[in-house]
Amino acid sequence: MNHKSINTDYDRLEVHFQKINDLRHVSAIAGWDEASMMPTGGGEARAQAMSTLDVMIHQLVTEPKVGEWIDGAKAGSSLDDWQAANLREIDRTWREATCMPEDLVAANSIARSKCEQAWRLHRANNDWKAMEPLLAEVVSLTREEASCRSESTGLGPYDAMLNLYEPDVTSEQIDAVFADLKGFLPKFADKVVNLQSADEVLPVSGDFSDVKQKALGTALMSSLGFDFEHGRLDVSHHPFCGGVPDDVRITTRYDTSSFISSMMAVVHETGHAMYEQGLPHKWRSQPVGKALSMGTHESQSLLMEMQACRTQEFMQFVTPLVQRTFLGAVSNDPAWSVDNLHRLYTRVEKSLIRVDADEVTYPLHVILRYEIEKQLIGGELAVADLPAAWNEKMMNFLDLSTENNFVDGCLQDVHWPAGLFGYFPTYTLGAMTAAQLFAAVQREIPDLLGNIRRGDFTPLLKWLRANVHNKGKFLGFNDLMIAATGETLNADYFKSHLEARYG
Amino acid sequence: MNHKSINTDYDRLEVHFQKINDLRHVSAIAGWDEASMMPTGGGEARAQAMSTLDVMIHQLVTEPKVGEWIDGAKAGSSLDDWQAANLREIDRTWREATCMPEDLVAANSIARSKCEQAWRLHRANNDWKAMEPLLAEVVSLTREEASCRSESTGLGPYDAMLNLYEPDVTSEQIDAVFADLKGFLPKFADKVVNLQSADEVLPVSGDFSDVKQKALGTALMSSLGFDFEHGRLDVSHHPFCGGVPDDVRITTRYDTSSFISSMMAVVHETGHAMYEQGLPHKWRSQPVGKALSMGTHESQSLLMEMQACRTQEFMQFVTPLVQRTFLGAVSNDPAWSVDNLHRLYTRVEKSLIRVDADEVTYPLHVILRYEIEKQLIGGELAVADLPAAWNEKMMNFLDLSTENNFVDGCLQDVHWPAGLFGYFPTYTLGAMTAAQLFAAVQREIPDLLGNIRRGDFTPLLKWLRANVHNKGKFLGFNDLMIAATGETLNADYFKSHLEARYG
Repeated sequence: MNHKSINTDYDRLEVHFQKINDLRHVSAIAGWDEASMMPTGGGEARAQAMSTLDVMIHQLVTEPKVGEWIDGAKAGSSLDDWQAANLREIDRTWREATCMPEDLVAANSIARSKCEQAWRLHRANNDWKAMEPLLAEVVSLTREEASCRSESTGLGPYDAMLNLYEPDVTSEQIDAVFADLKGFLPKFADKVVNLQSADEVLPVSGDFSDVKQKALGTALMSSLGFDFEHGRLDVSHHPFCGGVPDDVRITTRYDTSSFISSMMAVVHETGHAMYEQGLPHKWRSQPVGKALSMGTHESQSLLMEMQACRTQEFMQFVTPLVQRTFLGAVSNDPAWSVDNLHRLYTRVEKSLIRVDADEVTYPLHVILRYEIEKQLIGGELAVADLPAAWNEKMMNFLDLSTENNFVDGCLQDVHWPAGLFGYFPTYTLGAMTAAQLFAAVQREIPDLLGNIRRGDFTPLLKWLRANVHNKGKFLGFNDLMIAATGETLNADYFKSHLEARYG
Repeated sequence: MNHKSINTDYDRLEVHFQKINDLRHVSAIAGWDEASMMPTGGGEARAQAMSTLDVMIHQLVTEPKVGEWIDGAKAGSSLDDWQAANLREIDRTWREATCMPEDLVAANSIARSKCEQAWRLHRANNDWKAMEPLLAEVVSLTREEASCRSESTGLGPYDAMLNLYEPDVTSEQIDAVFADLKGFLPKFADKVVNLQSADEVLPVSGDFSDVKQKALGTALMSSLGFDFEHGRLDVSHHPFCGGVPDDVRITTRYDTSSFISSMMAVVHETGHAMYEQGLPHKWRSQPVGKALSMGTHESQSLLMEMQACRTQEFMQFVTPLVQRTFLGAVSNDPAWSVDNLHRLYTRVEKSLIRVDADEVTYPLHVILRYEIEKQLIGGELAVADLPAAWNEKMMNFLDLSTENNFVDGCLQDVHWPAGLFGYFPTYTLGAMTAAQLFAAVQREIPDLLGNIRRGDFTPLLKWLRANVHNKGKFLGFNDLMIAATGETLNADYFKSHLEARYG
């Protein structure tokens, strides 16, 4: 309960959004439960319950009095900087939730739900023809949505969709940094694959039981700075970071034939989790106290996974721990050496599948999708021509064909069937942001890699807390990057990082 | 979502109570999470979130339109029997939620919360003087509540409180059966203690790890008929049965120095859980489809724990399982024999503590509390005189003194500080109901104990499903007992059961 006195329209907004936050808290915990704890037979009743809760939350956000209070607060007495930023974020939330006509919201929800369900079936059968009309319906309705959001925000249609996930970043800005990457990565990937072809990489084998992998995972989480008083690690089908800032729930899955990917998945989710745990205490239940954007969130997971924890220094720290966990003692076995583990964790391969891609080729998967979805929303590409466009770009970027291979081509991801247009670029914005932030930390903490080698992540986390986590949504993305790194986002640090590690 | 057409006020009520049920679903899962999963640091934000959700649920139940719809439905077109019973239960829910003035609800909530928190502290210090004024305030406000509820229901004040947990049962009815027990139990307990003094009971020792105990618990749950597609077993500080009928969450705790109490705690909660899992599918999201009463719920746990699973036959079934679990193989060790385990599970001892009591002395603990709380609510006993009244009854019933020992006397339970007056008798109503139902099953299934010896609980569960679980709240308690056993509740079957097992 909020016990502050409630005198102004701004106060009323804070109380109202605390209430919304409380319901979202319960929704987040029930969502985590569904993915990690719920027995299958509970699914139907849960879906019904979650839908009711979501409708209630939406109703609270879109209540007409919220709009009136926003107007009143804008015209009202002076607010401090954080309150003003909170009002800005409340206003954004309200406009995003109210700018679309009810019938378009309903039509979108039905079309996406149908398309996503069909996708599970037709993807398994590589059946593009069956998917095409359903996806065309989703794209057509999303064009309408983009047009509504464009009117509401003053941004172009695609940018208005991008704005949902990455406010403050424009497609013009993305075009520039992606052009830079596109000029660099295909040739660089070829070079790295060629260089690595000489490396001997030994497989590691052993007893990779869930229990041992979990012990390693929690030990690593503690080292990185995850606060177990405010969070847990569990198992789910796909790793994710859920829960609430005071109680962050991350999950992973264990492949008992290898610990390699599970270990780094835990590191990745821990990066997400520490961002949530570091959100400003005073504001975390208000819109301004939430994570800044999807790209910023991804930057925090990739900073841990790619920047900090695929270094030689991290491998020096983690190798004895890995050996003791799985072999029972430290070992001289060359397969379990620092160098071999480092090689396993920095292998580059050109493949068709985004989620399996390494950090060198991953951005090409993203740029391909970004270019296509921009054309789809802009109406320059018809859904019927999507497989051909995919194949052409895949050939250009990675010399790989997806002709008639829809399951590994344009039916690969759930994002478009689910209506997530404007989401893909945030993955690579996150990777570039991570590199730029990590370079900035290294300038301020010259012995950062030495700290990591000694398993001391405290200075790194302290810097991230002060420069990213504690800011919430107080600054826009571009201002945050200038404050933290001295410049706006660019591809230079990411390219330098790749060259240093792989070149 | 409810896709039925909504034409009548009755239909509107069903839709509205489905929505309330959905929010209660999420609340139940979050409540289970809080007790079994949540890290301590999540408590503050969770309390805030749950409070907001509870307020929203209360607002939905008490909306004025609900009262209008109830009037409309009563005057409206004909309902089938289940709909009519559902309307009756909706009406009861609405009246229970709306009959008290808002300021009394708020005052109660504050006084109880203060008293319950103080109880944790003062109980630890055996400090009755500090508790007295806080408990007096709770009793005084509960008298006001009882008076409101009396006016709304036409029942006497104590009966109006009892009605919240045990609708359809009156204090007159309880007085009669408790008088019967009171005349029988004190002498009988002395006799049993005397008889058992000749028994040699051997302690069992071994490796009682959580993992082994959980394996035994889940094996037993499966045998009893718990459906793991619709439920889970986890750990919490106090065992409980939570979740929702489609997804029942039971918990236990493991004492690694002995499996004895943990095993039977799992059986007890499984009895509760199977009741929930057996509630009528078509109606479980409506008030009529919920469990009938607290006493009926307890009857289902005690039927499993006391009637079915403390038999010689159950011990014959479970002993090899227990031996294989904890000893790795079957054994001739006399401590691990059927007879010794049966003696361990049927030990009678006169003690001060209700929750540790065996089934012979337990009702005396309850009758003591019932008699006192009736006088407290009736105004015939002042809170200041509570310790003396407790001591006098404890001397009469069990020859034990609680003079100046408040922690083991009237400060023993959280119920009164939390405002739960009218709740205690349901424990013993449950025990008597369990005995009467079990006698009825045995008449209809002559080889029931043979089935149990063979680990086959299917016939028992089938009978309970048909006669109790599937009924929900369709029948009142007295009608259910007549339909299931041929007579209303009486103490005869419980007394016969005790005489057969212990006499």
